Parts: sequence; structure tokens; C-alpha cells
Amino acid sequence: MNKGQLLYEGKAKRLYQTEQEDILFVEYKNSATAFNGEKKAEIDGKGILNNRITTLIFERLKEYGIDSHFIERISDNEQLVRKVEIIPIEVVVRNIAAGSLAKRLGVEEGTPLKRTIVEFYYKDDALGDPIINNDHIDILGIATKEEVETLYELGLKVNGILQPIFEDVGVILVDFKLEFGRDKEGNVLLADEISPDTCRLWDAETKQKLDKDVFRRDLGSLIEVYEIILSRLGGK
Amino acid sequence: MNKGQLLYEGKAKRLYQTEQEDILFVEYKNSATAFNGEKKAEIDGKGILNNRITTLIFERLKEYGIDSHFIERISDNEQLVRKVEIIPIEVVVRNIAAGSLAKRLGVEEGTPLKRTIVEFYYKDDALGDPIINNDHIDILGIATKEEVETLYELGLKVNGILQPIFEDVGVILVDFKLEFGRDKEGNVLLADEISPDTCRLWDAETKQKLDKDVFRRDLGSLIEVYEIILSRLGGK
Ligand SMILES: Nc1ncnc2c1ncn2[C@@H]1O[C@H](COP(=O)(O)OP(=O)(O)O)[C@@H](O)[C@H]1O
Ligand SMILES: Nc1ncnc2c1ncn2[C@@H]1O[C@H](COP(=O)(O)OP(=O)(O)O)[C@@H](O)[C@H]1O
Ligand SMILES: [Mg+2]
Ligand SMILES: [Mg+2]
Repeated sequence: MNKGQLLYEGKAKRLYQTEQEDILFVEYKNSATAFNGEKKAEIDGKGILNNRITTLIFERLKEYGIDSHFIERISDNEQLVRKVEIIPIEVVVRNIAAGSLAKRLGVEEGTPLKRTIVEFYYKDDALGDPIINNDHIDILGIATKEEVETLYELGLKVNGILQPIFEDVGVILVDFKLEFGRDKEGNVLLADEISPDTCRLWDAETKQKLDKDVFRRDLGSLIEVYEIILSRLGGK
Repeated sequence: MNKGQLLYEGKAKRLYQTEQEDILFVEYKNSATAFNGEKKAEIDGKGILNNRITTLIFERLKEYGIDSHFIERISDNEQLVRKVEIIPIEVVVRNIAAGSLAKRLGVEEGTPLKRTIVEFYYKDDALGDPIINNDHIDILGIATKEEVETLYELGLKVNGILQPIFEDVGVILVDFKLEFGRDKEGNVLLADEISPDTCRLWDAETKQKLDKDVFRRDLGSLIEVYEIILSRLGGK
């Protein structure tokens, strides 16, 4: 499979066409960004770690029956994925109050929620990824009612799989963000990445943050904590 | 009915106990506030106008089968209402993009929406009345699933009644905010006020703003435009 034209350069990854119309090359960059791109840094080794962690997670999800765009990891910082039409909705699943939820509801960070909740954000950098409800999604015309239900259900389902996987290795899955896309047949497929860039992960004992909050809040070495996650998941 | 103890002083009204446990005196103040209380003014005559306009609207809604807390207007700036336990959710109904919706979705103010939409905001001044979804409502425990459906349906129903009433007198009902409460039997009842403080109302011909945006955005005399609304609704 050869790397063709660069299709899209995002904040954390580059997408390239391959010779096969419906398969893409994803190259994980070393860039770290936060606060809608306001804070930026290049961090050696980050791309490799996220490529490996995302791979492990998509493989585990596959075992539990969750299809994703993931095909295979083909180098340190590259993987092949199925091309989809991304639904511009960030599906955020939360088990414990943190970040914007703690602020929104005036709840102390770390408070367990009565139950797992799902939020939708409009994936639009220029608008700052605003939170939206089902009526907003409807008038924006970005997903059908059935798709919205699917996103909600898949969000909870992925959580139900990942929470115990992390728990088994002493990590609390606080919250995470998923992206989905439509394949050529219109099936909704889990896409993008699942990594410490897109999850909040806390050590179960020490409550140490093992995710991008280390970068957002200047709490130490991002590489060190991402390596902890990789090794806890059985990778190296 | 005698005015008893002051129960609550809000930004726009004062609530007093009466000798009857389940009936309250509402006194409409002349205060205008915006941006979560950051902008403030005393405007002579505002209380009288909102008391009259709210009365007319609750009376019209009653004719169309919508029960509210409203009992009767008893003076220029006072009315009697049934006491309820306010559900701390602001139900916002929108026909046309304006204000925070225009910003959230990046839509030009004045753009008609594909369909009427409903938004829920957590009524909490300290948090700045954040927008919330059904899952937030659930974990906050501020309304049941059935009540949330009722709020949504009543929002659309009130819109279906008020939109043509305003249209008939040359006014576009752009959006509005409702509050609801529970009576002693647990019935959900429309409460608070419906006035140019809580609606966006535009002249159908000139698109002149006939609501609190006149105050928010320094567009002229609030009293003059509230008087237009009162007289168009057949009041004086
Ligand atoms: N399978 C896929 N097909 C097409 N686009 C994808 C796929 N998976 C992820 N994407 C999109 O590619 C981009 C990934 O790069 P990223 O650096 O994370 O971008 P962003 O800065 O938009 O978050 C995102 O816009 C994401 O939605
Ligand atoms: N029938 C009612 N019973 C009890 N409380 C009510 C009733 N109608 C309205 N309220 C509450 O009384 C207050 C009205 O005063 P207002 O000045 O609008 O307050 P605020 O500054 O909270 O908006 C609001 O908190 C509103 O929710
Ligand atoms: Mg991304
Ligand atoms: Mg009020």
C-alpha cells in the first residue's frame, strides 16, 4: 500500500489517500494541542505512542464486536484505516465529572456521576466545538435521528467495554471522545482515534492523570504517562 | 388578599406569601438586567408593562387550554399566582436564529430555522445558566424523564399558540424562554412570566426589535417598544 496524496492535515494526524479508494493512511504526528489549538507543542514520541495505543484499543473493541475504521498498524506512526465520511459530532462519554462538565454543572472534578452520560459537540474548530442537543443536530442536518440514537448507544457500549479493560489494569476511565463516520453503504463506523489525547485516564490508586491533561495543565511529562498507559494495556 | 412575607427577590420580580399557603403575590419591578446581571438599569414603567403583557399572554394561553400559575392581575404592577416548586430548567423555544443560537451554530441572526427547536438551560445564576442535555438533567435530578418530555411538548405547544397570535398583529415570535413548576399534586404548570423580557419579538415589516434586546444592545427606548407590544396585543 503506497502513501498517495495528503488529504487532510489535522491537529494530531495526517490522512493520505492510498491506491485503494476506500483505504487511508493515517500518520500520527508529534503535535500536542489544547484549548482549541491555542496551546501547542511538538513532543517527540507522542505520535508513536498514540498510534500504538489506538491500535490496541481498536483491536480490543473489535474482539467485543465493535467495528471501527481500523485495519492495521503498518509502522511506528502509521496505520491503515477505512475511509469514511466523518459525522461532525464529537460523542463525549463521561463516568466521572471532569473538565467542562465539572464547570458546567458546578460539580467538583472527580465526583462519580449517578450514571454514565453522553454529550454531543459540534465538530467545528471555528465555532470552538460547541455542545449541541438533538434539535441542533436536526436543523444542522449533520446526522439523522437514527444515527443520533446509534451514536448514543455506541458511546455507552464502547464505555461498557473499555471501562473494565482499564479497571483491570488499575486505570479509571473518567471520560472520552469518540468520532464516527459513514462508510460507502451508509453504515455508522467508529473512526478517528482512542488514545490518552481523547480520554481522561486516572491511576486508580494515586489518581495521577495519565492523559492529555498532563499537557493542558502542565503536570509533567506527557510521554511518561502515555507510556504507562501503553504498558498497562500490554503494549510496548 | 394581603401581602405577607417577602419570599424571594429576583432580578425582575418580588414574590410575597399571601394568607393562602398556595397563592403568591408577584410584584413586577422596574429593573432591567442582562448578561447574567452584569448590565443593570432601573426603567420607570417597565414593571407595569410586563405585568400587563404577561397577564394578556397567560389569559390567551388559558383560552387555548394551557394552564399556568396565573390567577389574576390585581394592580398596575402586581398579580396573584399559584405557588409552585420551580423546576430549575429554562425552556427556550426558537423559530429563528438569534442570540446565543446564532453564535453556537455560526448562523446569521434572522435565519429561519428548518423547524422550531427547544433547548434546556440549567437555571443557576452562579453557573451562568449553562445549556444542558437530557443526561445532565437526569444526573442533576432536577426533573424526571416524563417531566422533560412534558417541558419539551409544552414548549412547542405554547409556541404553536403564541406564534399566530403575534403574527396576526405584525410581530414575529423569534424565540422565548419558559419556566415551569410543580404544584402540590405534582402537576407541571407553566409559571414565571412571558413578556418582552423573556421573548424576542420583531416587527414583521421593519424587523425592529420590540424586546429586551433594545436594552441589551442599546437600541433605544425599552418602554416605547414594550408599549408597542402591549398595544398590539390589545392592551393599554
Ligand atoms: N476513517 C476516517 N476517514 C476519514 N476521515 C477520518 C477518519 N478517521 C478520522 N478522520 C478525520 O481525520 C482527522 C484526524 O486528524 P486530527 O489531527 O485528529 O484532526 P482534527 O484537528 O480535526 O481533530 C479528523 O478530522 C477526523 O475526523
Ligand atoms: N408560581 C411561582 N411559584 C414560585 N416561584 C415562582 C413562580 N413563578 C416564578 N417563580 C420564580 O420566582 C422568581 C421570579 O423572579 P425573577 O425576578 O424573574 O427571578 P430571577 O432573577 O431568578 O429570574 C424566579 O426565580 C422564578 O423561577
Ligand atoms: Mg482530532
Ligand atoms: Mg426571571
